[in-house]
Amino acid sequence: MQKKNENKPDPVKEFNDYRARMNEKLLNNDNKIIKRIFNLDTNAFAPGALDVKTKELLGLVASAVLRCDDCVRYHLESSMEQGATKQEVMETLSIATLVGGTIVIPHLRRAYEYWEALEENEG
Amino acid sequence: MQKKNENKPDPVKEFNDYRARMNEKLLNNDNKIIKRIFNLDTNAFAPGALDVKTKELLGLVASAVLRCDDCVRYHLESSMEQGATKQEVMETLSIATLVGGTIVIPHLRRAYEYWEALEENEG
Amino acid sequence: MQKKNENKPDPVKEFNDYRARMNEKLLNNDNKIIKRIFNLDTNAFAPGALDVKTKELLGLVASAVLRCDDCVRYHLESSMEQGATKQEVMETLSIATLVGGTIVIPHLRRAYEYWEALEENEG
Amino acid sequence: MQKKNENKPDPVKEFNDYRARMNEKLLNNDNKIIKRIFNLDTNAFAPGALDVKTKELLGLVASAVLRCDDCVRYHLESSMEQGATKQEVMETLSIATLVGGTIVIPHLRRAYEYWEALEENEG
Amino acid sequence: MQKKNENKPDPVKEFNDYRARMNEKLLNNDNKIIKRIFNLDTNAFAPGALDVKTKELLGLVASAVLRCDDCVRYHLESSMEQGATKQEVMETLSIATLVGGTIVIPHLRRAYEYWEALEENEG
Amino acid sequence: MQKKNENKPDPVKEFNDYRARMNEKLLNNDNKIIKRIFNLDTNAFAPGALDVKTKELLGLVASAVLRCDDCVRYHLESSMEQGATKQEVMETLSIATLVGGTIVIPHLRRAYEYWEALEENEG
Repeated sequence: MQKKNENKPDPVKEFNDYRARMNEKLLNNDNKIIKRIFNLDTNAFAPGALDVKTKELLGLVASAVLRCDDCVRYHLESSMEQGATKQEVMETLSIATLVGGTIVIPHLRRAYEYWEALEENEG
Repeated sequence: MQKKNENKPDPVKEFNDYRARMNEKLLNNDNKIIKRIFNLDTNAFAPGALDVKTKELLGLVASAVLRCDDCVRYHLESSMEQGATKQEVMETLSIATLVGGTIVIPHLRRAYEYWEALEENEG
Repeated sequence: MQKKNENKPDPVKEFNDYRARMNEKLLNNDNKIIKRIFNLDTNAFAPGALDVKTKELLGLVASAVLRCDDCVRYHLESSMEQGATKQEVMETLSIATLVGGTIVIPHLRRAYEYWEALEENEG
Repeated sequence: MQKKNENKPDPVKEFNDYRARMNEKLLNNDNKIIKRIFNLDTNAFAPGALDVKTKELLGLVASAVLRCDDCVRYHLESSMEQGATKQEVMETLSIATLVGGTIVIPHLRRAYEYWEALEENEG
Repeated sequence: MQKKNENKPDPVKEFNDYRARMNEKLLNNDNKIIKRIFNLDTNAFAPGALDVKTKELLGLVASAVLRCDDCVRYHLESSMEQGATKQEVMETLSIATLVGGTIVIPHLRRAYEYWEALEENEG
Repeated sequence: MQKKNENKPDPVKEFNDYRARMNEKLLNNDNKIIKRIFNLDTNAFAPGALDVKTKELLGLVASAVLRCDDCVRYHLESSMEQGATKQEVMETLSIATLVGGTIVIPHLRRAYEYWEALEENEG
């Protein structure tokens, strides 16, 4: 694995840092409902009748049709961690584009770009 | 298997009959774009890197978060045909409800009711 | 033109009657914002740089991608009144289905059914 | 208060009966995520920095812009129980129609009709 | 109150400047419908049966579930001007996240960040 | 026509370059569904019963109510190429804002800004 160029912006790191910093603020707040929604989020994607990879792909397709770029990024990363291949991810996103229509395409472009950044980080 | 009460309305048959009748009209029409979208729909859920059952569950979660009752009904039926268990379907719908929010709940009630009708038809 | 079967339900009449009855109640209410939104609606579809038929097709495609059956019905009727042909309406709805995705299809089926009811009423 | 016509369908009773019956089935199921989302729903509308009536109006406007008729019905009933007046409810729905656009109007008609049914039941 | 660092970007000023500049262009245009929608927007949030603060929170929750960051920013600022506390705003946003689902979370992060910028500007 | 300032960022060029680069990657991928959706997109906006300019305005209003900035940009450019005037485009966007509500306004601001950039490039 090659040493990465330290001056090059890393969209994966940037996204995760912002996400972690703001989530911490939200959770340090005294709003119980928000805390419990975050907690549920962790539970819903735990192993069950469906394995975690399948659940992450379900989260990915839901995020894509609802056109939430940050949610797509999050589930792309978790899907990769669960061993989802590029082809599986592309099939998932193709279903999203068919079901959700061509308005999903701009999100598909950004998803593809983020997947490439994840692959580069995996290096 | 018991003989069904012929006077009892069957929501599965009613939905499929209406769907088939109107799809035929739409496809007999001379609009190529619509024909090709219908055709793509068949292709997108064919076996690939992901198996058909997983794809049907992807279609189900996408339909549920987009709150399309007819699409949910369609994918519930195809999921059952692919051997998806009630528990797998409920996990899929629970992810939909978490990602899409409590506005998904009325659709969850109707999905559950339709799943019961499918089970009854399976006998 | 043949006399219509008086016992057969007429979805066009039923929709328009309900719509007229409830709109009257809403407008007799003292809420100025709602009154003014209704008023704007009339103005936005008046002739301008674009002719009324084009504007009705714009209203139709917007209603279809937003999956509002009643709005689709309303604009189908106005489009027909403005002389839009079935082919023009189908091209408009095919763009809606492509842009908005296959979740538009159930609305497309109902739109097609309503267009047939409008044609039958035209006699 | 006059005795109600027992043969007349009561949309409030019908909605609440269906809702209660299906919610019970959903909660008797072993899906923890769904159970906890239902539980959160109760908690989010409990008194806090904002009083319950205000929270119900927040739930109403959110339901209306997301065009969820059943959610609108539920929050109309809870708003009435919390003492919200017709004028307050109409102002809430007028904001929904302005923010969410004229596609909210069909839902506004059904909301108005349901509010009238609630008033009749209040007798 | 400390003097602000003049070189630090101010997201509140940046948002308001862009918004004001583009709104002026839109209103100087000869489109009456757009002018009247802008005008209605001012009227809908004027005092009525509901006070202005409640209306701003209604606008905030509607904006959040519809996932419109700029609309959220606008109503956060107006809510603060109407004396809404952070706790009231967080309860409003927690209802949005529950009703609209976890896809609201990225918007919640940005809303929280903007609220902090507003607090900093308040000094 | 004046020579353009080469150091000034050109949002039209930037958008089109990114779009072209990512579309190429998506199409070089082996996912047939995505390829065919892209292909359909070209076909749906070809001349038919409706002329191309009208179809582009239909694509514009659909993109605007679905609040897809990139889709709006794309159809603004194609509409201009088809000879749509600013007034026609503004009428189309005013219908989008009325039908889709004030949450469309931030997208209207960005659409107006992009139209100005297109006009500037036209010189």
